[in-house]
Amino acid sequence: MAENKKMVEAITSMEDDFAQWYTDIVKKAELVGYTSVKGCMVIRPYAYAIWENIQHILDGMFKETGHENVCMPMFIPESLLQKEKDHVEGFAPEVAWVTHGGSEKLEERLCVRPTSETLFCEHYANIVHSYRDLPKLYNQWVSVVRWEKTTRPFLRSREFLWQEGHTIHATAEEAIEETERMLNVYADFCRDALAMPVVRGRKTESDKFAGAVATYAIEAMMHDGKALQAGTSHYFGDGFAKAFGIQFTDRDNTQHYPHQTSWGMTTRLIGAVIMTHGDNSGLCLPPAVAPVQVVIVPIAQHKEGVVEKATALYERIKRFARVKLDVSEQSAGWKFAEYEMKGVPLRLEIGPRDIENNCCVIARRDNGEKVTVSLDSLEEEIPALLKKVHDNMYKKALENLENRTFACTSLDEIKKTLADKGDSFIKAMWCGDEACEDAVKAETGVGSRCIPLAQEHLADTCVCCGKPAQHMVLWAKAY
Amino acid sequence: MAENKKMVEAITSMEDDFAQWYTDIVKKAELVGYTSVKGCMVIRPYAYAIWENIQHILDGMFKETGHENVCMPMFIPESLLQKEKDHVEGFAPEVAWVTHGGSEKLEERLCVRPTSETLFCEHYANIVHSYRDLPKLYNQWVSVVRWEKTTRPFLRSREFLWQEGHTIHATAEEAIEETERMLNVYADFCRDALAMPVVRGRKTESDKFAGAVATYAIEAMMHDGKALQAGTSHYFGDGFAKAFGIQFTDRDNTQHYPHQTSWGMTTRLIGAVIMTHGDNSGLCLPPAVAPVQVVIVPIAQHKEGVVEKATALYERIKRFARVKLDVSEQSAGWKFAEYEMKGVPLRLEIGPRDIENNCCVIARRDNGEKVTVSLDSLEEEIPALLKKVHDNMYKKALENLENRTFACTSLDEIKKTLADKGDSFIKAMWCGDEACEDAVKAETGVGSRCIPLAQEHLADTCVCCGKPAQHMVLWAKAY
Repeated sequence: MAENKKMVEAITSMEDDFAQWYTDIVKKAELVGYTSVKGCMVIRPYAYAIWENIQHILDGMFKETGHENVCMPMFIPESLLQKEKDHVEGFAPEVAWVTHGGSEKLEERLCVRPTSETLFCEHYANIVHSYRDLPKLYNQWVSVVRWEKTTRPFLRSREFLWQEGHTIHATAEEAIEETERMLNVYADFCRDALAMPVVRGRKTESDKFAGAVATYAIEAMMHDGKALQAGTSHYFGDGFAKAFGIQFTDRDNTQHYPHQTSWGMTTRLIGAVIMTHGDNSGLCLPPAVAPVQVVIVPIAQHKEGVVEKATALYERIKRFARVKLDVSEQSAGWKFAEYEMKGVPLRLEIGPRDIENNCCVIARRDNGEKVTVSLDSLEEEIPALLKKVHDNMYKKALENLENRTFACTSLDEIKKTLADKGDSFIKAMWCGDEACEDAVKAETGVGSRCIPLAQEHLADTCVCCGKPAQHMVLWAKAY
Repeated sequence: MAENKKMVEAITSMEDDFAQWYTDIVKKAELVGYTSVKGCMVIRPYAYAIWENIQHILDGMFKETGHENVCMPMFIPESLLQKEKDHVEGFAPEVAWVTHGGSEKLEERLCVRPTSETLFCEHYANIVHSYRDLPKLYNQWVSVVRWEKTTRPFLRSREFLWQEGHTIHATAEEAIEETERMLNVYADFCRDALAMPVVRGRKTESDKFAGAVATYAIEAMMHDGKALQAGTSHYFGDGFAKAFGIQFTDRDNTQHYPHQTSWGMTTRLIGAVIMTHGDNSGLCLPPAVAPVQVVIVPIAQHKEGVVEKATALYERIKRFARVKLDVSEQSAGWKFAEYEMKGVPLRLEIGPRDIENNCCVIARRDNGEKVTVSLDSLEEEIPALLKKVHDNMYKKALENLENRTFACTSLDEIKKTLADKGDSFIKAMWCGDEACEDAVKAETGVGSRCIPLAQEHLADTCVCCGKPAQHMVLWAKAY
């Protein structure tokens, strides 16, 4: 159990077994604890601190775009869940049911929310009466439950944390605009906070959210070439309003059904960060969400003045960055490995010789580069280095995405590409027919991820049936 | 439904019917929405923003005292709940049980957490092995469920939001120190953020948390003289550690059971704020947690330059206070009533004559006082006024607490005091016998709230049985 032994065993290399590499990181970076509640996890302090940073940045973006936070109950009565037909069909098979309160059987079963459209609709029916009450731009930060069969930490668990935005508007145009706005907010967040490039697109009919008119999503590429859906934004039209009897009196004194949206991002993002940026030394965290941006490791800390100097640097740096000072008795080598595993963007080394020369060494987690920095210029150099780390992480992820995206014009070409290149993003034309969508998946193993908003004309005909093509689709295996 | 009608009907006066006054405020200040989930509520944006401010301040205090946030599952398997005997007896009668996932019956029932000691213990058993792993100072912000029969918004609901701190220490001394530290953090928070004086004390044996060795609490006095328990801090000794098999190897290489604490505050605090500071015009919010600290109401806003000037002031003030500008078409009178109902601490009025004189009028919500302030000194005057509002609110609440606390030395005196003065805090001596505690309650209607940490010697003998007194107890009716 001694801590110094912990880091000695290396993690599985990602080239050998990507799934095991992921599991090893989740454990060794102390992100997750296993529990006796099957499919549910403990989010440990280090992972929760990442989530708090994600929350803080996203919540700021929501508030800047005029949204307010609320909190709905965690339970949904069965009759309320059933009000919108498509919605209940989509979710009922995977909800957890509460049947008893204390020793008494409930008159009506309650499900633990898998998502909260029905609760928001009930509330909107109570508070929306006039055009003056619109729009309502609400969001909540809660956890939801979906009774999944197979689970993996962050990627698929029975309970996960998320935010769910739910908005209601006087017109379809406004609601569609909101759906697109939030998709863009998500994509910007991924780029600027997670250093993660994404493809924006619309889901095909078969992949839409239960009850939606249109579902938009952002798809990120993981290090292994698989896709991960990082966020979704749904346009509902007035379907929910009709099912829940939400109406408002417009300026012309007539009754109308309002139009709605919902959009969400989850703790999956932590899994996406691991698989986008991690390497065989462990996590590699984007500076914007790293709980510790700079770790100070004193060198030869038993020597006079070293710990004092390191402490003084800590006090200086904490004014402008999230900094940690490790003066524990572990060896410097152990600390190096530990903070590489934890993905800390910058490691600042300070020893007797550095102090003599009024400088320190700063090592970057993203590429291992070391630079010697004058102690007089830390206020400029550290923020500049954090920006460089972010930019380089984004560049590497974008290269991975671009280098592993291939345009194909036949099923055989898709199969050959996947065989030659391994898991990749495939761009190919599609007629719009669900049968072809299913056939591509059955024959090649990749499913439709989305119809990218940035369309290209790769060919005139569907990759599957040869009929006229309607859309370019992004195909991939997905988490 | 027209908005201008909303404020015309006054709320029930608190002197006529305190309970109805509370219900009216909760509705008219748009704090809560009712749902079809019995005993659960929608926390609407204005109330949730108060909670966010509470969270932000408390979370900062927790982090300053070395605590880290985590997140445990919301479910507890029945067998896990049963591991600590007293704990399960206390909570099992009031938990919600999940029995089905999708269409399948679960092998073991899961309860929705009423509190998370059992989950934290399971996790600690996994991660605590050596003295080097101690202490762990964890907290989580989640919602919990208790199947209450009678519910009232914020005060008692089947689901409520809270934070639960759970810590584990090598020694009893450290754990006791932590229990006391967090009680003090809570009391400081109530004083500095909620302008709410509290009595710190220890619960009697019969009132302890299920599984605790000692429970400490802070008791606040509501405007009607009743008590509201605003926060609790529990010392567990090593009882949970023994039940869950948590052991660590100490420096001397022997195995020991660690000592634990837990402590929590909830959305009840919003109810406490309403009932401590509210009046017949509505809410009165302490500046530190008010979603809007200053509302700008333009006077004669149709006149040239008024809206422009108000907007310029808004831009200035938002740099140092939470400010809202209301340029809606409602009358100034309607706006005055609306923001009084919402409890906004300061109202800034600016009209043509004010602009001419380079000044504005600022009205205080707490006492109605109006002052004319030069537009050149808003940066100094507004923070100073907010502080005055806070201090005056605290002073008034403290006066209420002190003026309605009475020392009594016999049951008859208690009865007479309550009959003469109405609901009050009663200080009286107690022998320590549970039978006397029950008898006081049965005869006078007030229950033991706590054994105040600041003890006084009012008499030598128990107020009930006449045997030697052990403690001075605070008695009151409670929410």
